[in-house]
Amino acid sequence: MASSSSLHLSKALLAQAISHHGFNSSSDRVSLSSVSLPSFSGLKSQSPTSSSKAASSVSGSRRRAGSSTVRATAVETLDKTTEVSLVEKSINTIRFLAIDAVEKANSGHPGLPMGCAPMGHILYDEVMKYNPKNYKWFNRDRFVLSAGHGCMLQYALLHLAGYDSVQEDDLKNFRQWGSRTPGHPENFETTGVEVTTGPLGQGIANAVGLALAERHLAARFNKPDNEIVDHYTYVILGDGCQMEGISNEVASLAGHWGLGKLIAFYDDNHISIDGDTEIAFTESVDKRFEGLGWHVIWVKNGNTGYDDIRAAIKEAKAVKDKPTLIKVTTTIGYGSPNKANSYSVHGSALGAKEVDATRKNLGWPYEPFHVPEDVKKHWSRHIAEGAALEAEWNAKFAEYEKKYKEEAAELKSIITGELPAGWEKALPTYTPESPADATRNLSQANLNALVKVLPGLLGGSADLASSNMTLLKSFGDFQKDTPEERNVRFGVREHGMGAIANGIALHSPGLIPYTATFFVFTDYMRAAIRISALSEARVIYVMTHDSIGLGEDGPTHQPIEHLASFRAMPNLLMLRPADGNETAGAYKVAVLNRKRPSIIALSRQKLPQLAGTSIEGVEKGGYIISDNSTGNKPDIILIGTGSELEIAAKAADDLRGEGKAVRVVSLVSWELFDEQSDAYKESVFPAAVSARVSIEAGSTFGWQKIIGSKGKAIGIDRFGASAPAGKLYKEFGITKEAVIAAAKEIS
Amino acid sequence: MASSSSLHLSKALLAQAISHHGFNSSSDRVSLSSVSLPSFSGLKSQSPTSSSKAASSVSGSRRRAGSSTVRATAVETLDKTTEVSLVEKSINTIRFLAIDAVEKANSGHPGLPMGCAPMGHILYDEVMKYNPKNYKWFNRDRFVLSAGHGCMLQYALLHLAGYDSVQEDDLKNFRQWGSRTPGHPENFETTGVEVTTGPLGQGIANAVGLALAERHLAARFNKPDNEIVDHYTYVILGDGCQMEGISNEVASLAGHWGLGKLIAFYDDNHISIDGDTEIAFTESVDKRFEGLGWHVIWVKNGNTGYDDIRAAIKEAKAVKDKPTLIKVTTTIGYGSPNKANSYSVHGSALGAKEVDATRKNLGWPYEPFHVPEDVKKHWSRHIAEGAALEAEWNAKFAEYEKKYKEEAAELKSIITGELPAGWEKALPTYTPESPADATRNLSQANLNALVKVLPGLLGGSADLASSNMTLLKSFGDFQKDTPEERNVRFGVREHGMGAIANGIALHSPGLIPYTATFFVFTDYMRAAIRISALSEARVIYVMTHDSIGLGEDGPTHQPIEHLASFRAMPNLLMLRPADGNETAGAYKVAVLNRKRPSIIALSRQKLPQLAGTSIEGVEKGGYIISDNSTGNKPDIILIGTGSELEIAAKAADDLRGEGKAVRVVSLVSWELFDEQSDAYKESVFPAAVSARVSIEAGSTFGWQKIIGSKGKAIGIDRFGASAPAGKLYKEFGITKEAVIAAAKEIS
Repeated sequence: MASSSSLHLSKALLAQAISHHGFNSSSDRVSLSSVSLPSFSGLKSQSPTSSSKAASSVSGSRRRAGSSTVRATAVETLDKTTEVSLVEKSINTIRFLAIDAVEKANSGHPGLPMGCAPMGHILYDEVMKYNPKNYKWFNRDRFVLSAGHGCMLQYALLHLAGYDSVQEDDLKNFRQWGSRTPGHPENFETTGVEVTTGPLGQGIANAVGLALAERHLAARFNKPDNEIVDHYTYVILGDGCQMEGISNEVASLAGHWGLGKLIAFYDDNHISIDGDTEIAFTESVDKRFEGLGWHVIWVKNGNTGYDDIRAAIKEAKAVKDKPTLIKVTTTIGYGSPNKANSYSVHGSALGAKEVDATRKNLGWPYEPFHVPEDVKKHWSRHIAEGAALEAEWNAKFAEYEKKYKEEAAELKSIITGELPAGWEKALPTYTPESPADATRNLSQANLNALVKVLPGLLGGSADLASSNMTLLKSFGDFQKDTPEERNVRFGVREHGMGAIANGIALHSPGLIPYTATFFVFTDYMRAAIRISALSEARVIYVMTHDSIGLGEDGPTHQPIEHLASFRAMPNLLMLRPADGNETAGAYKVAVLNRKRPSIIALSRQKLPQLAGTSIEGVEKGGYIISDNSTGNKPDIILIGTGSELEIAAKAADDLRGEGKAVRVVSLVSWELFDEQSDAYKESVFPAAVSARVSIEAGSTFGWQKIIGSKGKAIGIDRFGASAPAGKLYKEFGITKEAVIAAAKEIS
Repeated sequence: MASSSSLHLSKALLAQAISHHGFNSSSDRVSLSSVSLPSFSGLKSQSPTSSSKAASSVSGSRRRAGSSTVRATAVETLDKTTEVSLVEKSINTIRFLAIDAVEKANSGHPGLPMGCAPMGHILYDEVMKYNPKNYKWFNRDRFVLSAGHGCMLQYALLHLAGYDSVQEDDLKNFRQWGSRTPGHPENFETTGVEVTTGPLGQGIANAVGLALAERHLAARFNKPDNEIVDHYTYVILGDGCQMEGISNEVASLAGHWGLGKLIAFYDDNHISIDGDTEIAFTESVDKRFEGLGWHVIWVKNGNTGYDDIRAAIKEAKAVKDKPTLIKVTTTIGYGSPNKANSYSVHGSALGAKEVDATRKNLGWPYEPFHVPEDVKKHWSRHIAEGAALEAEWNAKFAEYEKKYKEEAAELKSIITGELPAGWEKALPTYTPESPADATRNLSQANLNALVKVLPGLLGGSADLASSNMTLLKSFGDFQKDTPEERNVRFGVREHGMGAIANGIALHSPGLIPYTATFFVFTDYMRAAIRISALSEARVIYVMTHDSIGLGEDGPTHQPIEHLASFRAMPNLLMLRPADGNETAGAYKVAVLNRKRPSIIALSRQKLPQLAGTSIEGVEKGGYIISDNSTGNKPDIILIGTGSELEIAAKAADDLRGEGKAVRVVSLVSWELFDEQSDAYKESVFPAAVSARVSIEAGSTFGWQKIIGSKGKAIGIDRFGASAPAGKLYKEFGITKEAVIAAAKEIS
């Protein structure tokens, strides 16, 4: 069966569509050369979203009927000339690669790739700049599949485009152990995938971060004669992403910042796992996005309206001061006669029978995983074109380097991630005579010192800059009209902030985003922090007010379980510095850990500069700050972190006054300490010494690992309270006296 | 200085306002009897939000000038006749109670109470139905201060209204240890406070939950001749709440559900902690809310436009099929000559000098904490009126009970929280011969059994009902037109779902909301779960797909650190049942814990019904399911939870075959086990037996507490991977063989 043969949509599908939506099928068809399918453009006309008059709608009448060569003249940037029949063959290739991979795995989500194949094809074949043989090429367009469950769409596109990461065998090993095609897109498994998506709503936030990075770098480095930074960020998001609060947070910011080179495709297919979105999602997305300051376009027929999609992209590119949302109404599982437009095609394999029926329906005579020769040939040009694009850019960069030596060096550092030599000398150091200070203030000193030597450092707070102490004094605000600046104002949007930071970090190896809020509000952004850890994004989380030490704001604001909860999270550094040297150490570690995010927990309250603390100590995670024992045999070991290290040190002084041999250990990062040699660990915590007391103003959960069965953990295993900090420490027993009593009890 | 003397706003404030906003002061004044203040109605006219034409604006021209008795005839429900001068005196009383309390504590947020005092006064003095002497009266209007930092507003109102919880001494002990006036509103500390707020955006979500509860109960219980359930839910939210994603999630749902009796006041003061909201928040909130299906009203002068506020409330009440957002433009810190309209008044005491200046400016001659006699007298009527309101309702309920016996019994159970006798007999039980099943399916059996005996059980999933197995088969969907039903469709909005559930749970003691998603996505809703725990809200979190056992979806979907992270959270039950009996036990415990939320972690994969499991065992948190030792001296103890208990049981069989005395312990809830007697704990984990092996498909963090220094913890301390579940268990070493090897190594 040739792909050009005319087919009719099965009556079953039509009947289904009519009964669900009551549209008149006969008056609403579009005739195309290869397959005769209803356009579905009228399918959603009863929905509340479609009633918005505000969205500019790409008219369905622009669609061309009949077999003809479509030159997408409407789209300046799309100067490809491709037979419609070949376009459709390519689109069906994408659909069937997804269908076949999900079928073989008997697991996965075929519905989205089948519905979004047209926009996917147009993006990767006609619109995007990339070099398949160098996925790292700096000036590539970025693409994010925010609806990550549809990852087979992206794998199929990467495969067709010629990326080495997705070969035919990879497609055949979809969702299998050790494959490069996991169940959701993962940047650390599959080159060509920019960020890790799947948890809904975060992908659009990552895309905002990627677009922010581009805008910032373009503003900093572009010259009138050389626009060395210049790419778009494209993202596909679905109904699920739209429902998540994070997507509204970041869309509000993207509108505020006027990120004109961010183009989002909203796959408006009206189906989510629980069925029709009518049951929980009847808002007008168009109107909301207009309120958020976006340009909104509606492509009514995303299934076959290729020129509409092209025209929408052209329009989006022409709007330079606003991000664009292209609402593309599609049919989930398009082409499946019995399952299209239903939740059953969302997240399960079609099943052999329906795969057959879909092959017949779309006129697809090929074996599973087959890419027709003409499609292969058509896509093969991207390897040469991509190489040429990069070569052209490299030449441009060479020009740039010649003319703008200093800027080029900075940009290079951002592109490669190579840190400027001697950067760590900028870190401030302290002596016990240095004035007492809150570690949040010491953190600010570090940020302001580091920003002078790290060209990729930028960030900000979720509306707590003056409490988190995160302002970079030598820079202004990153805003629509001042995108070259480095203080990012996130507003009260913690989750969006974290996921935007992930996008920034994964844009270029040398970008080092930091974000800030009260430590307790990591609860709002935990999902993004987990993605930082999973996707190896070096984000620095500056988390102040890290205990009951914040005082009067009370239990809603006082972290208790947070240290434990992050110590349990893989691939994340949880750092809790005690003073100036340790804060500097925490920053050193955070910057050096290229593939790991760090949370730095900082105090609101003043803390003294302690004797014995050091940057080097922090790098080991745990170390001795004072000791009057000999032969590695202290009578007792006192262990503290952050603001409680001072209490441990004072308790040790008293105990030593009574003749005890006392060691004080700062356990600033459990993860780093875990990575030390057994010999080093034994030198800090000799197995023979079981008398150990820990003190930390937080949950004692997990401390048994450090103090052993005989040790005592002083902490807080209930919620805090509203009162001055000193009172709280006393009432909750986080005191020198408690440490001394515990020490005496067990030693 | 009498309050009726005419004063002029200090030139300083005027100058400041002009320089910030360029409005013409002279043409924009309103003359009132007591104080002459600019109306500020033009103050925000340059802002992007105010340019929306869509919002219906309550015209400033309705304001009445001169000294006159204002009868709020425009407001049907407000039939009070109060001198404007007394209204203003009351409003200033609220302002100064807030100013004085913050000043005395030298900590707190005076700005919001000063700006929102007018709407606060109108709500509590003129609009709301409540009984100060019985804060539990079921049919009261609910009020939520979503911008919880402004809690002194609510404390001042509760004080004036005659609630016992806030006496003068309580105001004087604001933010002090043991006081009933903590730094943010906490329902468990202060009666009259409905929910716990402070973490931004959650209060509006709680309010949606309260309004949902009212609508549901009204639909279920009201009769044409007796509308026994009938109250409004009011909420004040600020710019910070608006920026948080959660508020958009729940506003979308409230619009979808058409919650007409939800009336939200948006304190549009343009100031957040980092300064003017212009730096991060320039969206059109009006337009967004219209897109979300709300009725939107703009009160341009929230500082002195009392009638505008009244008229807006009237209009809001007249709109019955949509929730209403009343955007009230106010001046933060209104009345403070030098700090109003700036971030400095947001979160710090004014300071003695500025307090004096404010007293002068607003004509307030009184000592700190003084409530003028006429104000006191005016408010005193609420005690009698509240008692009358409740008595009237009680009579109505007596009528209802006579006529609708069955319904009255159900409603009573919901109002009192008393569980129907013998409800627990509905819990299903199993034998080892019962078919193997996933605990998510067993959970569904429990929910469907319990809903028949628990009139207050209702809930749903964040678009994963068919995966979480949470549909109540005997009920339809809670929707706009079917609010009597009990399946709530939350859409992909986990955070909103959790906070809505908190509102439902705190509406009435007998309401038992459950929510569901994949366990890993607790990360999205963790902030709401924490508030469940802190505010003692019995929410049941049905969390399926609780480990790598979910298979192919991969690491973004596989929880690792989540069990540990919740075990560290205070006042929360983390339950991980292993089979049918344990799932029933988990539900029993969850229902019985009236002041504690529960998370029930459930498997996607099939699990056998194990010998020895029981409901009673679950109630103890940890218990022996099998043992071939004597004298409480097993050679080894194997400990498992959830899906890994089966592996422990199988390993025990093998080890016993080799002659070992092996005990198998199910540690289904660490918290409940912790609460058992020392003797019971010793009977399960004898101190003398140090050979202990734990197995759990999650982080080993925290297990040292159970297994001691010599034990072995089998778990996963890295992220998961995408592959079939069986393969993952094998590759990650979560196997019987690993348990046996570990057991042999240490016993």
